[in-house]
Amino acid sequence: MYSIKTNDNLEQISKRLESSELDERYHTVKTIVEDIKNGGDKAVASYTQKFDGQEFDLSKAKPFQIEIRQQNLSEELCLALANAKNRIEKFHQEEFKNSKLGQGWSFMGDYQEKLGVKYTALDSVACYIPGGQAPLISTVLMTVIPAKVAGVKRIVVFSPPPINPAIIHACFLCGVDELYAVGGAQAIAVAAHGTESISSVNKVVGPGNIFVSLAKKYVFGKIGIDGIYGPSELAILAGKTAKPETIAYDLLSQLEHGSGLESVLLLSESQELIDKTKDKLSEILETSLKASLKSQQQVDTILNSLEKWSAFIAFNSLEEAANIINNYAPEHLELQLGADANKKILDLINNAGAIFIGTKSCESLGDYLAGPSHCLPTAASAKFSSGLQCQDFMKKISLVDFEASPDINKLIEDVALIARAEELEFHAAAMEQRKS
Amino acid sequence: MYSIKTNDNLEQISKRLESSELDERYHTVKTIVEDIKNGGDKAVASYTQKFDGQEFDLSKAKPFQIEIRQQNLSEELCLALANAKNRIEKFHQEEFKNSKLGQGWSFMGDYQEKLGVKYTALDSVACYIPGGQAPLISTVLMTVIPAKVAGVKRIVVFSPPPINPAIIHACFLCGVDELYAVGGAQAIAVAAHGTESISSVNKVVGPGNIFVSLAKKYVFGKIGIDGIYGPSELAILAGKTAKPETIAYDLLSQLEHGSGLESVLLLSESQELIDKTKDKLSEILETSLKASLKSQQQVDTILNSLEKWSAFIAFNSLEEAANIINNYAPEHLELQLGADANKKILDLINNAGAIFIGTKSCESLGDYLAGPSHCLPTAASAKFSSGLQCQDFMKKISLVDFEASPDINKLIEDVALIARAEELEFHAAAMEQRKS
Repeated sequence: MYSIKTNDNLEQISKRLESSELDERYHTVKTIVEDIKNGGDKAVASYTQKFDGQEFDLSKAKPFQIEIRQQNLSEELCLALANAKNRIEKFHQEEFKNSKLGQGWSFMGDYQEKLGVKYTALDSVACYIPGGQAPLISTVLMTVIPAKVAGVKRIVVFSPPPINPAIIHACFLCGVDELYAVGGAQAIAVAAHGTESISSVNKVVGPGNIFVSLAKKYVFGKIGIDGIYGPSELAILAGKTAKPETIAYDLLSQLEHGSGLESVLLLSESQELIDKTKDKLSEILETSLKASLKSQQQVDTILNSLEKWSAFIAFNSLEEAANIINNYAPEHLELQLGADANKKILDLINNAGAIFIGTKSCESLGDYLAGPSHCLPTAASAKFSSGLQCQDFMKKISLVDFEASPDINKLIEDVALIARAEELEFHAAAMEQRKS
Repeated sequence: MYSIKTNDNLEQISKRLESSELDERYHTVKTIVEDIKNGGDKAVASYTQKFDGQEFDLSKAKPFQIEIRQQNLSEELCLALANAKNRIEKFHQEEFKNSKLGQGWSFMGDYQEKLGVKYTALDSVACYIPGGQAPLISTVLMTVIPAKVAGVKRIVVFSPPPINPAIIHACFLCGVDELYAVGGAQAIAVAAHGTESISSVNKVVGPGNIFVSLAKKYVFGKIGIDGIYGPSELAILAGKTAKPETIAYDLLSQLEHGSGLESVLLLSESQELIDKTKDKLSEILETSLKASLKSQQQVDTILNSLEKWSAFIAFNSLEEAANIINNYAPEHLELQLGADANKKILDLINNAGAIFIGTKSCESLGDYLAGPSHCLPTAASAKFSSGLQCQDFMKKISLVDFEASPDINKLIEDVALIARAEELEFHAAAMEQRKS
């Protein structure tokens, strides 16, 4: 039996991503981006050779898909992806409708002026799909579909070579326009600056490792980015009747991502449930190791994340639990307190990426097909940002139309007064040109 | 008579903000932020002394306002600010209502599951108000009001010392909770990390110089930021009947900001109008110099921005003009083509911060009181982002509730299939715990 240790010091846990190594990596990223900005395709080819040991491949997805599907993918997986696609699409269509995205609005002011906004979709977007240990097929669906529903005309996918056939199939399924086998900071550089053969885009979205994240931050301003995604997090609020085994599996599903920086919280009124869950965690890890479902290294990484970055906390009141959650602001939150308490605490929680309500609402549903994008704010960024949504692929233009105003002399006076208080003479003079 | 020269090379103009000096400034900013993160109040005091030559003053706005208003501000200016406040507030209330901000939504899926979102306002926000050459009183209104309408509980203002009384008054008028006489990168550092006496916030918004902008980029991720604002831009599309003098004043109102990097465009079908506008620009600058409304240095800066960063272009069709605008993506756009052509081109324009329709809709109206925030995307960032709005002070949480689903076995199978294709065994196992 493993002895499951946790940290239980939330402040230490939330500081786990502050690293002094960032500085060195910033310079690596800067060099890559600047090299590609100046060197174009040739620089991309050189970095792809260096980091991925692959030729720079300009192939686009569409011509390949049918062949690849027949050769390599099971019919069942293709059907599961198609079902997931429909569910995610439906959710984002509801977002579009309910948030009245795309529908401009206006009202008439006191001077018979028309004020309002016009919404437009971004022209072009790149979705970054990590390769690494496992092919994140689902991330294609979770980034491309909201962009598509929002009406983005050109959707490009970047993923490190060699690209898994299931990723290529997912790109086809979602109607991706271009797929490039380029990964890491070099992909973000291409998205921002383009090359001779790949046009730049207006915004890049999607998760990635630390180099991808730093590159996104570096190019931000030149193009838009969705946010900086860090290692996975899950907090579970569990009541006395919750099942320790289910909770243990849910916690492990976040811990298995394998960066060594994953963080989980278990909060319960019941110390007994906490103890039993620890036993179950130990049991499952041992069984999984014996059955070769996980390697010794994978188990060690999980045990390390538990010990260093995870906390199991017994709470006394829902208010106390809600405070802990609002401060930690987890990427994912499961409520398994029972129907009444779930409802009560839901009203108290302001900071979280996604909330899964009730014992059936397993976090894995959200990763693949519940509907909302699984690109969610991590590392407490749920305090100021939201999971990826159609809205991220749209922008607004403010509209100001005083043409029908019979007389705006009063406004002219006000503007001239404030402008001159700001020492901006020509602002005042420009207004005074409109006196009647 | 000045001879008004323009650049007319749009590509050169849009590259004006790419500078190799950024690297050195990045290190200055990094040092300031890290020093304040580690040194707190003491470090803030030291930088405030160094850069502003002032004591670090922890006074808060509220106790001061009445006294200051009586001593230093004219009744007229206070009334003008109050009117502006009401107009800006009304506009953002309309945004809130029309975008259904704050109203969560949900729908029932095929498995009787409830899917939707919950919106919440950010807990705390800082608005940065530049000092520098002139006090940007109006920026208090344009940043604080949308935050207030969105429901942010704690709104903090940072502005370099000494703070102009009109800025203090504007803070009072808008219900700012705390006002700190701290400017530059050090203000952004305090917003992100807090000190012993000032709590950090969730997001910082507002314009600033290059150090403020780099500091925002540096702290992004730790807290949220609204965007990176650069020097002002205005494009005017003018028809034959537009008035050269009015156009000249409008262009000058953008050029007078004085950074030397402002950029204006004039597009017209009429070369005659372009030539006449150049004459008027020359005339106004000379008169303003003689009347001491502008110094020689100010006039030189304006002439330099015209010559280096501005273009006057004769176009042949509305489609051509719209293409130029969509590529340049100006912060401000004035349409003075006549009612029919204005309407036609409005449909063709996708990229701009704010559009002012018709000859009466002077851009200065937008700077002070038309309604929408004057914090708008510059340097082509209108291709992927929007002017400041209530939405920037809200976030959503995704909600997934399968508790009422009688049977989700089909979904469990689909999730398990995709999870195993991604080599995530525990994701599959966690789902399979829910089999019925």
